[in-house]
Amino acid sequence: MPHQVLIHSRFPKALMVRIGERYDLLNGMGRPPRESFTPEQLQSVRAMITAGGQALPPAVLDSLPALGAIVCYGTGYDGIDLAETRRRNIAVGHSPAANAASVADLAMTLLLAAMRRLLAADDYVRSGGWSGAKPSPLLRHPRGMTGRRIGVYGMGEIGRRIAARCAAFETEVAYHSRSRHDVPYAHHASLAGLAEWADVLMVAVRAGAETEHAVDADILRRLGPEGVIVNIARGSVIDQAALVAALEGGVIAGAGLDVYAHEPHAPDALTRLPNVVLTPHIGGHTVESHVAMQDCVLANLDAFFAGRPLAYPVK
Amino acid sequence: MPHQVLIHSRFPKALMVRIGERYDLLNGMGRPPRESFTPEQLQSVRAMITAGGQALPPAVLDSLPALGAIVCYGTGYDGIDLAETRRRNIAVGHSPAANAASVADLAMTLLLAAMRRLLAADDYVRSGGWSGAKPSPLLRHPRGMTGRRIGVYGMGEIGRRIAARCAAFETEVAYHSRSRHDVPYAHHASLAGLAEWADVLMVAVRAGAETEHAVDADILRRLGPEGVIVNIARGSVIDQAALVAALEGGVIAGAGLDVYAHEPHAPDALTRLPNVVLTPHIGGHTVESHVAMQDCVLANLDAFFAGRPLAYPVK
Repeated sequence: MPHQVLIHSRFPKALMVRIGERYDLLNGMGRPPRESFTPEQLQSVRAMITAGGQALPPAVLDSLPALGAIVCYGTGYDGIDLAETRRRNIAVGHSPAANAASVADLAMTLLLAAMRRLLAADDYVRSGGWSGAKPSPLLRHPRGMTGRRIGVYGMGEIGRRIAARCAAFETEVAYHSRSRHDVPYAHHASLAGLAEWADVLMVAVRAGAETEHAVDADILRRLGPEGVIVNIARGSVIDQAALVAALEGGVIAGAGLDVYAHEPHAPDALTRLPNVVLTPHIGGHTVESHVAMQDCVLANLDAFFAGRPLAYPVK
Repeated sequence: MPHQVLIHSRFPKALMVRIGERYDLLNGMGRPPRESFTPEQLQSVRAMITAGGQALPPAVLDSLPALGAIVCYGTGYDGIDLAETRRRNIAVGHSPAANAASVADLAMTLLLAAMRRLLAADDYVRSGGWSGAKPSPLLRHPRGMTGRRIGVYGMGEIGRRIAARCAAFETEVAYHSRSRHDVPYAHHASLAGLAEWADVLMVAVRAGAETEHAVDADILRRLGPEGVIVNIARGSVIDQAALVAALEGGVIAGAGLDVYAHEPHAPDALTRLPNVVLTPHIGGHTVESHVAMQDCVLANLDAFFAGRPLAYPVK
């Protein structure tokens, strides 16, 4: 009989097909397990799959007395209280780097689209503005990538890939992270220093208490009036109200956002701005990244049920 | 007294400010010179600035008996009949590579936006679809860049830069051009062979009689149902009716277009498609590329009036 695995978050079924071939999935469809399953059903569950960004309250852990492994689908694990899981002797695994290329690609999509005013350009063609020779919202040429100073905040798997992509666009790249990495980009000891130097800020830092609202009104002011900010990390890293104010007031030029303070809500103050490009947290969602994430989930589960350490443990 | 230079095409005045500081500009504002100036005024004009893509009919040359240099603002010179200018002993110059980075960047913008369905994603956030948990047009995950086979058609200054950018996205890159270049990508002897191999086709070839409608229904069929095509070269390279049919029929998945068969017109059949991203021929339009193009124009004019060969002659 296959091992039972609880699915804590709400995932599209298509994502679980491969995993379901090997495990017996108890799919809570995003509801607390106790609402979907009886205590008897939950009693013997030893492993669960969850979305790393979704909060996993102690009450859920309490409902799973046999739980030995939490496997995050994706890179993040900010919804997991690691002190708590350590105390309970629960192993936590994730999918490091599995979606990094996909997220970095979306970061570049957002940056380029914001810089080249893609939404206005497409609308100008479709609405007949171009063929009708109407006044163009694109008449003032934008600054492009050439020679731009790109600051990457965070130099993990995603930050590295963003930096490599940006470098191919004939830009200057530098970064800030707590520690210096073995990468061919200049390290700035502070985010403020990076923002002062850069005119593009790519937010790729891991979310957590120490990065909450790290990008505030002061950092945005340092980026300057030609500044563009892209966030594909977590909404909590940016003070969203300060960002809206900076975009409204011309403190910076534009933004590309895949993540927000309170998902799935993007405030009207943001969605009515013309100088932003907005996507609904789709950074990791490509065929390739899901296959890679499923590979990691399966490797973690297989190792756990074989009595070995997780293949991709959270460190 | 400064030398006189005729401006044949219609350029925004801001582009001509630097050139106007050194030369006396006769600005025809896009009209045939004889409509704006008297034969006496035109008689002594020795140099002109034109947009390379705009046709320069023999009648215009007839109206400029002293013309010795045609300076194209930009890379292209497909509007110039080189046999005719040679016969008349008129030097033709352009701005090679000046806008190549800017155009390559837009090609990447279009490719990434088409792949990641950026327009639908932004609309889903802005329209409240995301916060309202409405059925998402993005539910089916798209294929991303990772491992994609990218075929670059044309390996000039722009094609090279597109290839370098694509390579940074963890893709496989190959190309087709008449001759083999010293580049680290596989050469395909035919466009058909490249399209058969690739699932993304980046059109970056110089326009002309031999490339007219080079991308036809057969090439698109070879790209296949996950294929994406991007054109930042000239509209004439693609059989536009065949492209519309392929996009409507699912023969290929999507397209990103900056150029069209009859600019500034993009047909309704194209503008009503959801699987295309359309820009109004803005590839070369960034601050950086205009500065670089003005540098070339000035270098060409300065050389000509000093009696030297053009700095950037068309070869």
